[in-house]
Amino acid sequence: MGGMEVQIAVAKTNKYAVTESGDTLEVVERPNGGVSVVLADGQTSGRGAKAVSMSVVRKVITLLAEGVRDGAAARAASDSLFTEKQGKVISTLNIISIDLQTGTVVLTRNNPAPFFLARNEQVDCISSPSTEIGLSLNVRPVISEIPVEPGLTLVIYTDGLVHAGERVGRPMDVCTSLKAMLEDQDPSPQEIADTLLSEAVRLDDNRPCDDISVVVLKVRERRGDDVRRMTVRLPFLARK
Amino acid sequence: MGGMEVQIAVAKTNKYAVTESGDTLEVVERPNGGVSVVLADGQTSGRGAKAVSMSVVRKVITLLAEGVRDGAAARAASDSLFTEKQGKVISTLNIISIDLQTGTVVLTRNNPAPFFLARNEQVDCISSPSTEIGLSLNVRPVISEIPVEPGLTLVIYTDGLVHAGERVGRPMDVCTSLKAMLEDQDPSPQEIADTLLSEAVRLDDNRPCDDISVVVLKVRERRGDDVRRMTVRLPFLARK
Repeated sequence: MGGMEVQIAVAKTNKYAVTESGDTLEVVERPNGGVSVVLADGQTSGRGAKAVSMSVVRKVITLLAEGVRDGAAARAASDSLFTEKQGKVISTLNIISIDLQTGTVVLTRNNPAPFFLARNEQVDCISSPSTEIGLSLNVRPVISEIPVEPGLTLVIYTDGLVHAGERVGRPMDVCTSLKAMLEDQDPSPQEIADTLLSEAVRLDDNRPCDDISVVVLKVRERRGDDVRRMTVRLPFLARK
Repeated sequence: MGGMEVQIAVAKTNKYAVTESGDTLEVVERPNGGVSVVLADGQTSGRGAKAVSMSVVRKVITLLAEGVRDGAAARAASDSLFTEKQGKVISTLNIISIDLQTGTVVLTRNNPAPFFLARNEQVDCISSPSTEIGLSLNVRPVISEIPVEPGLTLVIYTDGLVHAGERVGRPMDVCTSLKAMLEDQDPSPQEIADTLLSEAVRLDDNRPCDDISVVVLKVRERRGDDVRRMTVRLPFLARK
């Protein structure tokens, strides 16, 4: 049989004492096969930010479902947000798509936060300048297209991770953490996402200063069957 | 801290020798917290079925994102499909929503296939009559609202599981399989979904007669942190 398996893991937490995360993340099927992960972070906090990021993600997944290409969907979401809010509200946007027809991962990025690309233990930080959507008309995303091959790891995140620990003078070094993980072992994407998130939360003294979402994609040799699988874990406190 | 954790697992495979699954499944955030799982199965196979089930799921998640209640979203998707196809194309539809505000699971069902509801080891098969959407105007879903409590397990699936093994005279008995699993151990939702799916595939001599999707929701006592997690596993064959 041969073949590969793409594994995507997400870890997501809220700003301390805020029940509503400003980050929205959806994983959707693409009309020609494959999946897309869409992550947006509205640049305020609480309910306002959530409404913005939900509306951005909604717009993007609707367009992707119609077969619109990722870059065009990002530009449309940007123009739409700018037209509605006149540049007063911006949002970061990342789209990761696994295109089974071309055998590539397409990363579309409107986010000053860098992303990390590892091939086995070689880690690159991709920090080419990229602006949020909604700031002006004609905001363009930075698009990277990467062949799907075993050993590939991609890490993207919202700015809660970038700013973790800054308040107390201990900023996070994502690259070093990631290298240490990849050199030590063959971690699952969920282990990578969980480790980065817990490190960020610890740097913020267990009271995150912002919503934090971490997405990790990893390509492995396929060992198992043809079954697609998904798991969601949603912790919550019982209401009295 | 206390509290609970809702875990949702999906296992999904295609009809033998058909690359495109007619089943579409999406997990989306609800605007007031919580998540919804939306599963549709268009009643033909291949690309036509996929287009139908994708359009049904898309319609439903767009309405849910606007705050429309699940039952109303299902009725709207039905009217819309009927109007477009004049009753010639139908689709099953299941929506499972975790509503964190009311602390309930709401199951909205337009699917002749039953669902299973277990409280610890007590398994009930809920098979009240329910019709597919798109058959006529005013198709109503069957709605069940269940308090979220530890030990609750819900299992829903598309008709590929119902019909598994029928061709060779060995129909599947989901209830017995589920009871055996729940009595033996405390299986994770992914283990339950995987076991049911692999049993169905085996009954079809490893060549599934139809697309099969199994969704399992389980409520557990919360042991861990506040982090939301999601994992997606997408196997595929490399193209030459």
